[in-house]
Amino acid sequence: MKPLTHPRCDELCIEAVLGAMANPIRLRIIERLANGEELTCSTVLPEVSPSTASRHWQVLREAGVLFARREGRIILHHLRRDDLDARFPGLLDSVLRAVRTTPDPHPITT
Amino acid sequence: MKPLTHPRCDELCIEAVLGAMANPIRLRIIERLANGEELTCSTVLPEVSPSTASRHWQVLREAGVLFARREGRIILHHLRRDDLDARFPGLLDSVLRAVRTTPDPHPITT
Repeated sequence: MKPLTHPRCDELCIEAVLGAMANPIRLRIIERLANGEELTCSTVLPEVSPSTASRHWQVLREAGVLFARREGRIILHHLRRDDLDARFPGLLDSVLRAVRTTPDPHPITT
Repeated sequence: MKPLTHPRCDELCIEAVLGAMANPIRLRIIERLANGEELTCSTVLPEVSPSTASRHWQVLREAGVLFARREGRIILHHLRRDDLDARFPGLLDSVLRAVRTTPDPHPITT
């Protein structure tokens, strides 16, 4: 079983974080985790194929946007809000505001 | 000569803007234009090949991050700060803050 690696807070890179956020599915994941909940992949993206969903969660984890941990056979994720706010103050809130005020729902293309 | 097209303010898309910003060269361009100056490609990226530089400016223009206009044989660019602030309040400032507080200069790979 592969270890779930994460960059440390001081390793977070603005380009990688922006790149990880620059996708409608990943923005939807971020928005769903924004209230602090810890969720599984399938809870957030029930209609997206497991392999596609897995890749999106991986991109977000490797960029440091979220933290993943195994609990038995499932993986639980939560947003690294404190780390993101510490390294890039205001970024997450401005992105969440943009997502929430976008008139049309983000189309999901798998 | 190809027209320089730009999305309208109400057409700006958060995914496209984040994607356009998610690159060290493009972040450097944004940072150089942040004081409101209107600059040519070669002023900002003298060491980057013209074709590579041109592609980066195009990505930023097409995402709506900057505005380009021809003046004779040169193209002048300025940051669309008002449009970005109107559509995505706080985003540009948080990204600029992140760029300016990053300890190491962003490496330029052409």
